[in-house]
Amino acid sequence: MNQSNALPRQSIRTRVARFTERAAFQNFILAVILFNAAILGLETSDQAMAAAGPLIVALDTACLAIFVIEIALKIFGRGLAFFKSGWSMFDFVIVAVSLVPVTQGLSVLRAMRILRLLRVISVAPSLRRVVDGLVNALPGVGSVFLLMGVIFYIGAVMATKLFGAAFPDWFGTLARSGYSLFQIMTLESWSMGIVRPVMEVYPYAWTFFIPFIMVTTFAVVNLLVGLIVNSMQDAHNEESNEKTDTYRDEVLHRLLELENLIKAQNETRKD
Amino acid sequence: MNQSNALPRQSIRTRVARFTERAAFQNFILAVILFNAAILGLETSDQAMAAAGPLIVALDTACLAIFVIEIALKIFGRGLAFFKSGWSMFDFVIVAVSLVPVTQGLSVLRAMRILRLLRVISVAPSLRRVVDGLVNALPGVGSVFLLMGVIFYIGAVMATKLFGAAFPDWFGTLARSGYSLFQIMTLESWSMGIVRPVMEVYPYAWTFFIPFIMVTTFAVVNLLVGLIVNSMQDAHNEESNEKTDTYRDEVLHRLLELENLIKAQNETRKD
Amino acid sequence: MNQSNALPRQSIRTRVARFTERAAFQNFILAVILFNAAILGLETSDQAMAAAGPLIVALDTACLAIFVIEIALKIFGRGLAFFKSGWSMFDFVIVAVSLVPVTQGLSVLRAMRILRLLRVISVAPSLRRVVDGLVNALPGVGSVFLLMGVIFYIGAVMATKLFGAAFPDWFGTLARSGYSLFQIMTLESWSMGIVRPVMEVYPYAWTFFIPFIMVTTFAVVNLLVGLIVNSMQDAHNEESNEKTDTYRDEVLHRLLELENLIKAQNETRKD
Amino acid sequence: MNQSNALPRQSIRTRVARFTERAAFQNFILAVILFNAAILGLETSDQAMAAAGPLIVALDTACLAIFVIEIALKIFGRGLAFFKSGWSMFDFVIVAVSLVPVTQGLSVLRAMRILRLLRVISVAPSLRRVVDGLVNALPGVGSVFLLMGVIFYIGAVMATKLFGAAFPDWFGTLARSGYSLFQIMTLESWSMGIVRPVMEVYPYAWTFFIPFIMVTTFAVVNLLVGLIVNSMQDAHNEESNEKTDTYRDEVLHRLLELENLIKAQNETRKD
Repeated sequence: MNQSNALPRQSIRTRVARFTERAAFQNFILAVILFNAAILGLETSDQAMAAAGPLIVALDTACLAIFVIEIALKIFGRGLAFFKSGWSMFDFVIVAVSLVPVTQGLSVLRAMRILRLLRVISVAPSLRRVVDGLVNALPGVGSVFLLMGVIFYIGAVMATKLFGAAFPDWFGTLARSGYSLFQIMTLESWSMGIVRPVMEVYPYAWTFFIPFIMVTTFAVVNLLVGLIVNSMQDAHNEESNEKTDTYRDEVLHRLLELENLIKAQNETRKD
Repeated sequence: MNQSNALPRQSIRTRVARFTERAAFQNFILAVILFNAAILGLETSDQAMAAAGPLIVALDTACLAIFVIEIALKIFGRGLAFFKSGWSMFDFVIVAVSLVPVTQGLSVLRAMRILRLLRVISVAPSLRRVVDGLVNALPGVGSVFLLMGVIFYIGAVMATKLFGAAFPDWFGTLARSGYSLFQIMTLESWSMGIVRPVMEVYPYAWTFFIPFIMVTTFAVVNLLVGLIVNSMQDAHNEESNEKTDTYRDEVLHRLLELENLIKAQNETRKD
Repeated sequence: MNQSNALPRQSIRTRVARFTERAAFQNFILAVILFNAAILGLETSDQAMAAAGPLIVALDTACLAIFVIEIALKIFGRGLAFFKSGWSMFDFVIVAVSLVPVTQGLSVLRAMRILRLLRVISVAPSLRRVVDGLVNALPGVGSVFLLMGVIFYIGAVMATKLFGAAFPDWFGTLARSGYSLFQIMTLESWSMGIVRPVMEVYPYAWTFFIPFIMVTTFAVVNLLVGLIVNSMQDAHNEESNEKTDTYRDEVLHRLLELENLIKAQNETRKD
Repeated sequence: MNQSNALPRQSIRTRVARFTERAAFQNFILAVILFNAAILGLETSDQAMAAAGPLIVALDTACLAIFVIEIALKIFGRGLAFFKSGWSMFDFVIVAVSLVPVTQGLSVLRAMRILRLLRVISVAPSLRRVVDGLVNALPGVGSVFLLMGVIFYIGAVMATKLFGAAFPDWFGTLARSGYSLFQIMTLESWSMGIVRPVMEVYPYAWTFFIPFIMVTTFAVVNLLVGLIVNSMQDAHNEESNEKTDTYRDEVLHRLLELENLIKAQNETRKD
């Protein structure tokens, strides 16, 4: 209401901000994101590129142009407040990365353009809620992650020193050991692929690997347990307590009133 | 009661509907389903087919005929109401598919006749409850599925662009990349089978695959957590709250009554 | 007290029954079970058998003799009541199986003698509780098991019909298909080992296997969820409700008493 | 306050004890632990050792010297009380092991020096809490572990007797069978790697391995369920009951007071 009386420039910004918050605008952007994802999918097909390559590239550029305009409008409309929201920053970075000039060699950057599809998460509320949930669950299990980092670093140093000389491909450097230990933690070919060959050279290698598997698996299980318990408490507190609190307040209120009524009786009788 | 006074044609339909709802009829159909499943199992044995092939085929046809009559009776008995129940439609489609004429070439359609065994689910109440439970659990985790679809599409496009040229069998097209990423998500031979060979050509391939594994595994874990929490809340709400609500209603009712009694005392005393 | 006045024969049976229930007797049997397990472990070592084979066999026979005497005493002491307890029957069957004469050829029966170690479960109360817990959890998830049986039978029939001709080792008969599908459900080498080779002959094989993996995995997850929810409700009901029920009874009792007191006041005043 | 008046020697011990409990001292030790871990990581790199080997070794020795001084100060400060805390003993053992003279041959002991990084757990409270949680969860699932030990021993004896002769590498001795069964329990290459080859010699081998997989997997699932239920109950008891207890105490207190008030009324009226 105040804003309608503001200066003309302020007024344009407000109108732009309102325009970008309209459902129709949001749905249009969502459609462009999905259309762009389909275009980028077509780009992986040699046949499609042979048949309509220039059109596909042009449509992709058009989609990018729309995103740039959208972000520009939002920044103009909200000003610095735009950069305070995590999801806005997320959109900004994804679009900004697409503008980095890509020479033919940097195929990685070209491949990363599909990350624009991640913007559906910031646009679709239901996906946004899931990701918010995942991100909120992280701090509660941060200590377990830290502990696993410590276990992995210790494991990588030990494996490199013990088995690095005989198995340079798997345990030659800290990085290779870390990768191999991650593979072992996921239980992929840990025995037939890695530990049995290692045991042919170092027969007691299992005294390192089996405890490693048990400790990391137990830590992962505890991570899972922690997530379940947190999430269940959140659900429990949110839902049932409100009803319980209302009930309890009412019981205590009624009991106090009864006490007051009886005390009042006593007073009147004494008079 | 009304129906016994209805027109003759109505009355026949009602009698048929009642007949199809009898326990004896249901059990007979259940027995035919199980017998048909055994017959279709025998059909996979070359020995059994050599010894009694025509008999086996004839018995299968007889079972199918019984199912057709059963469905026809039910449709006659209930009319259009038959098609309103999901489980009735399920039965109808399974039997209808079996009636599609199968030429020798369409071995897939022949193989799908065993899907008739799925009808035990609609007939046995305990199985029906389990499947209803599974289906009811889906919407609560629909967003996580959608999110995983987005992650898979992004992963497939990136993998195709990055590794498609060097590994056409695994990442040559979007479909192949999707299949390979599904395999990697299930952790089957992800390292020894796929990522180590890829890393021999692209040493930094792990920067794509390890985050992919972590994100999809974390999403699957969250799906699991969501299912557990939902299911626990359902169980919790159903069971314990009824007793609690009765208790709470009684406490509040008694407190109100006490208040009224005391107020009545005050009134009578003032008189 | 009554029993000391009973007939002599009764008295002997009672004394024997009491003797077999003494802690010292139970501990002695537990020690014999563990000693027997160690002896049977030694029997697997060629070195140990070469050095002291006859002694090991003699000690094993001695342990078996002790078990036979123990069971005989218990049956004599308790009479037919012995056979009413599931755990007593369990002990009886395990010892009875050991008495079946074993010719040299039946190495399977010889190997099964180590199953006697399972008797520690019936002797040690903490293990007994765990197994009772596992067994009690089964009925609650019986329907899910039944459903998985249906899915496996359907999958096995379809896989045999579709892929049996080209891959007789994996899908040649119902039994082989069932084994291969179990392997696929555990996700062991499902893709690199089975599905990729199958897809070279039948390119659309993934339309059968990927849904199979998803459905069975989802069913297993639901089994897990069911077990967790059941177990949590048991724990919840057992523990917290007793305290809550006591509290609720007290509150309702007090409220009724208050009502009676006030009604009594009203009565006395009217007089 | 008392201590400031104590004898000089007492006073020095107290001052030392206080010094070792200061946040600055703790943070310094934490920094040394992390620096030492980085140094030990560098030691795995041949390049780094070639460039600055003596410096790295000297820095490692310096870190160890700091740890020795730290432990000595703590023992001097706290006396025998130092050895009563589990975490202090943990620090003591880790540092003591590092002091064992390491000849060139004992590369294992050299590799174990990185275990010093485990000291971050005893220093950082958040990690300490996670490990305390893991350790506290163990007794609740001890019986399941014991049961799995029994199952593994039985499985190993049976596998050695049944398959040891034909597959000495996998099932030749109790230890090898135990390792192979652990691999099978983790589902790694259990079918393609182990059971299919075994079934070529013993076609009924699956009657041993599939029940083994089912029983151990079910036991692991129950372990997981037990951990979740325990942890949830702890969380539940800790948090919500305090509030509930306060509320219940207040309700009962108020009800008693009401009763006393009304009884007092009755008394006064009778007078």
